[in-house]
Amino acid sequence: MKQSIVVMKFGGTSLRDAERVKNAAQRIVSSKSQGNRVVVVVSAPGDMTDELLKRAQSIAEDPDGRELDILLATGEQVSIALMCMAIKNFGVEAISLTGPQAGIQTDDVHTKARIRTVKPKKLLSELNKGRIVVVAGFQGLNTRDDIVTLGRGGSDLTAVALAAALKAEICEIYTDVAGVFTTDPRLESEAQKIDQISYDEMLELAGSGSQIMQARSIEVAKKFGVKIHVRSSMELMKKGTIIANAVKDLEAPVVTGVSYEKNEAKISISGVPDRPGVAAAIFGALAQDAINIDMIIQSAAENAENDISFTVARGDLKRALLSLESIRIKLGAKKIESEDRVAKISIVGVGMRGHSGVAAKMFTILARAGVNIEMISTSEIKISVVVEESDGLKTLRLLHKAFGLGKKR
Amino acid sequence: MKQSIVVMKFGGTSLRDAERVKNAAQRIVSSKSQGNRVVVVVSAPGDMTDELLKRAQSIAEDPDGRELDILLATGEQVSIALMCMAIKNFGVEAISLTGPQAGIQTDDVHTKARIRTVKPKKLLSELNKGRIVVVAGFQGLNTRDDIVTLGRGGSDLTAVALAAALKAEICEIYTDVAGVFTTDPRLESEAQKIDQISYDEMLELAGSGSQIMQARSIEVAKKFGVKIHVRSSMELMKKGTIIANAVKDLEAPVVTGVSYEKNEAKISISGVPDRPGVAAAIFGALAQDAINIDMIIQSAAENAENDISFTVARGDLKRALLSLESIRIKLGAKKIESEDRVAKISIVGVGMRGHSGVAAKMFTILARAGVNIEMISTSEIKISVVVEESDGLKTLRLLHKAFGLGKKR
Repeated sequence: MKQSIVVMKFGGTSLRDAERVKNAAQRIVSSKSQGNRVVVVVSAPGDMTDELLKRAQSIAEDPDGRELDILLATGEQVSIALMCMAIKNFGVEAISLTGPQAGIQTDDVHTKARIRTVKPKKLLSELNKGRIVVVAGFQGLNTRDDIVTLGRGGSDLTAVALAAALKAEICEIYTDVAGVFTTDPRLESEAQKIDQISYDEMLELAGSGSQIMQARSIEVAKKFGVKIHVRSSMELMKKGTIIANAVKDLEAPVVTGVSYEKNEAKISISGVPDRPGVAAAIFGALAQDAINIDMIIQSAAENAENDISFTVARGDLKRALLSLESIRIKLGAKKIESEDRVAKISIVGVGMRGHSGVAAKMFTILARAGVNIEMISTSEIKISVVVEESDGLKTLRLLHKAFGLGKKR
Repeated sequence: MKQSIVVMKFGGTSLRDAERVKNAAQRIVSSKSQGNRVVVVVSAPGDMTDELLKRAQSIAEDPDGRELDILLATGEQVSIALMCMAIKNFGVEAISLTGPQAGIQTDDVHTKARIRTVKPKKLLSELNKGRIVVVAGFQGLNTRDDIVTLGRGGSDLTAVALAAALKAEICEIYTDVAGVFTTDPRLESEAQKIDQISYDEMLELAGSGSQIMQARSIEVAKKFGVKIHVRSSMELMKKGTIIANAVKDLEAPVVTGVSYEKNEAKISISGVPDRPGVAAAIFGALAQDAINIDMIIQSAAENAENDISFTVARGDLKRALLSLESIRIKLGAKKIESEDRVAKISIVGVGMRGHSGVAAKMFTILARAGVNIEMISTSEIKISVVVEESDGLKTLRLLHKAFGLGKKR
């Protein structure tokens, strides 16, 4: 009988110093001794990637993408070597592979390449020799045989992609938090760890400011049905959160989590002529200035005029307003207003699909508490509201409690 | 007509910070604009290699060789990326290649691999596109497709090997000294830069403590007739020292340089039975304990007994004496004496070949100055003496002057 394959991914904070590397190695060795075939994926140690970036910028303001990738890829290469040394110190066979050696093949976009395919032949042959294989996350080989990096969240992506290619039993993401919580425990002490969450819910949480995993890794995991276990690298015995397909459980809670994003700003353009191409003109101008838009709301036309509101990161507000002024004149819109202190709160849950009245309940709760809702946006499994930042935390806690997410449930 | 190829090698101190990288890049760009096809070889920046080694040792006392190579190779990979960014900032096309990408193929000995062959196909194709090619020194690919490092002086070796494979016009070694001197200018202010020196003389100087280039690179340069130019990375216009075949010049100076090694210790074993295998037993035991021997002198047999003297690094003296005591008993030798404060001074020059009396002149000078010579060893182009360390500097200066190496010549 073949042993099942486990992918274990360790992030930069878990590799910051020798002590942590040894701890992670112990954990890896113990998983192997439980009878698993173990593949380890590591990020660069600590803040090495940031330091390398700084080094590049001290030489060239806008460094060449190919060379930047060659530079940044050294971070993970340092980690695989150190991790293998630590594992071998326990008397267990291990071998390190760079992303290219592990068969991660990508497209040709430097600094944010996408994985095209994984050819795990060498990796499997090393596993079959009974070795633990340690793979450099965040990197791969492009069609020109150049090393490339995968952009933000790249190491998680490597782990999920390898788990998919190897049909791993599970992809364990070791992190400095105990798992995914109903809301940020630093903001609400009542927050509870979620035992299991669906890919879709996790995607909505990822999009709404949950910092644990980037959406792209979760999307790949969903596509290939890779079961993810987000867990603490410090607390050895505790289970974290399983991300998998939605459980068919009639009694699943309606709402799984509440997410919170501050540092948002809201912009409203009123009196926009109601004709095709207007939205394209506005958001095209902002995109050209590299300003990311979050929520967009357009009210129904009235007197052949629209009001368009949207949110941007607070740091982008000034630039956005500058960029919009010329567009306003061009379009003949009436005025632009902005508010720089708003927060976005979202409730997320697949349970919403089968329950009506979730939105109504949410709005009633906020109304009773005197919270003014400035914007609303909904998806099938998420409802987001924008409120004044001063109401943000109160809103978060009210919703967390009202939907039964607190510790007492 | 094909442009000639120039190999330019920059060491760690020339790459320590952004400013120095930019300076080196400017120099490289200027060589290219003079009509050369330019290949650059770089070491790891500053003391990065030492830092990586320390990191490895904080995790494993005796780190695995394969993993250590993967770790150490990141240093030069950082340098090639930064150097390319700096060159491109001048608007000149450049591309970085790791040792494996540059076609440096080695044997399988990790951390001190030897180059087997160079396959410069990709390198040449990039040169032919008009690009400056920046190659990571100190590293190559072994027969198992693993990255390996070449050990001490590895980057010089990469530069010389590439110059040989590419039939480069010259291999420029940029360093923090202005060239090769008649003796160490920190010890003798009269020391003069040597304009041209033969491979053999340079080899003897390298073996006698000159820190500029390791013997292995010079040996390869000699074998393939690679002309080397050792020059300062700071003083842009000044010529350094050319290392090439001996000039056929009747008036070449008899002595080219004087080298000085302190931190030596001398060991004498007296009353050693005069029978075959004795020397093998003594030096075999020392080799097994990884103690390097420098000069060895055995006096003529007298009463079927020999005296054997040799020098070791002072730091190895204690271990050497321990290791020798059991051998002495086994061989029935009479006694072991040691002196821990000696220095070795050598005069080097191909001119000696055609001149008799050089040794006699040397000994006469020392005798007149009251310097006691403890050991003598000669080769065809070198005469070395061991003296008390307190006499070392005086000896150096006397010889430097007597053989006409001072500034006034």
